[in-house]
Amino acid sequence: MAFYYFPKSMEKLISYLMKLPGVGPKTAQRLAFHLLYAPEADALGLAEAIKEARAKVKRCQNCSNLTDEAYCPICIDATRDAKSICVVEQPGDVIVMEKTGEYKGLYHVLHGSLSPLEGRGPKELTVDLLMKRLAEGGVSEVIMATNTGVEGEATAMYLARLIKPLGIKTTRLAHGVPVGGDLEYTDELTLARAFVGRKDL
Amino acid sequence: MAFYYFPKSMEKLISYLMKLPGVGPKTAQRLAFHLLYAPEADALGLAEAIKEARAKVKRCQNCSNLTDEAYCPICIDATRDAKSICVVEQPGDVIVMEKTGEYKGLYHVLHGSLSPLEGRGPKELTVDLLMKRLAEGGVSEVIMATNTGVEGEATAMYLARLIKPLGIKTTRLAHGVPVGGDLEYTDELTLARAFVGRKDL
Repeated sequence: MAFYYFPKSMEKLISYLMKLPGVGPKTAQRLAFHLLYAPEADALGLAEAIKEARAKVKRCQNCSNLTDEAYCPICIDATRDAKSICVVEQPGDVIVMEKTGEYKGLYHVLHGSLSPLEGRGPKELTVDLLMKRLAEGGVSEVIMATNTGVEGEATAMYLARLIKPLGIKTTRLAHGVPVGGDLEYTDELTLARAFVGRKDL
Repeated sequence: MAFYYFPKSMEKLISYLMKLPGVGPKTAQRLAFHLLYAPEADALGLAEAIKEARAKVKRCQNCSNLTDEAYCPICIDATRDAKSICVVEQPGDVIVMEKTGEYKGLYHVLHGSLSPLEGRGPKELTVDLLMKRLAEGGVSEVIMATNTGVEGEATAMYLARLIKPLGIKTTRLAHGVPVGGDLEYTDELTLARAFVGRKDL
């Protein structure tokens, strides 16, 4: 007697759902049942939305951020300060920065960090595109907002060495105690950086 | 200055992903990035799999279990014992029962339990179809394997009252201490049922 499982088309759906991050067999099964029982417009809408996003979303020709158009909304926004470029690793980081409301300049999305171990060199990132933007002139400051891990720091250092000879100010986001964070729960490295970066009151 | 967010097609994808059970804004965003960066075959494969499952999966004309064909693999399996029908609430319960390897009969999937509060009466379940199967004769036992909550118990009682006049044996899965379960951690109701159902050694 053959072992009975789900209908073939449902098994196929489950196997595709299991490729999503954080989705195991149980969750995939639950999602598959949901997609079968949900209103048809929701299930087919998701299928269409995946196809549409894959077809439409591309990189901004200027800053490499994700966009449906040739240029992203930030690059074509004339009210933004074109003299400043904030370099981030991922498109999601742009959203995070924008939510602070602090920054009015432009961005550059690297799409990763330098990682010799994972075979990501400058060619795999959008470094050439960044240097081309800077060579065109008009930029007075590049803010490195790469992540604070080893790879992000190395990427920031590498870019700073490339950019400084152009006479452009290169800065790094400040390290320090998180706002609302207890000193007691702040790790030593962060605290040491906060000391070094202390300011007059 | 307009608040910048994701490209429109990506926002749409995120909003559809947020309709999935257990998926909030953060997870939806992570899944959307994954679907954009994953190999094209994986992302478009998922979209196709959703469409295919919605188009193909239907209810078995005999037992209402999910199937791609007119009848499910269990109903057309001549080696199964057609004298016995196990009544479950959901298609997923069939899988659970099959995994035990204990049961060789057929199934009937109710697609829910009786719930006056949620407006589910016998007409919303596949009760008529079950009674039709039983009226055709040849079935000697109906095993109620509905869930053990109030609704599942009420559904089992209701069906038993309908079926008994037909002279068909109606049974319920045994309640008792879970195998490998500590007595200490077994709730009183389960323990009381285990007492009532005790067996000779």
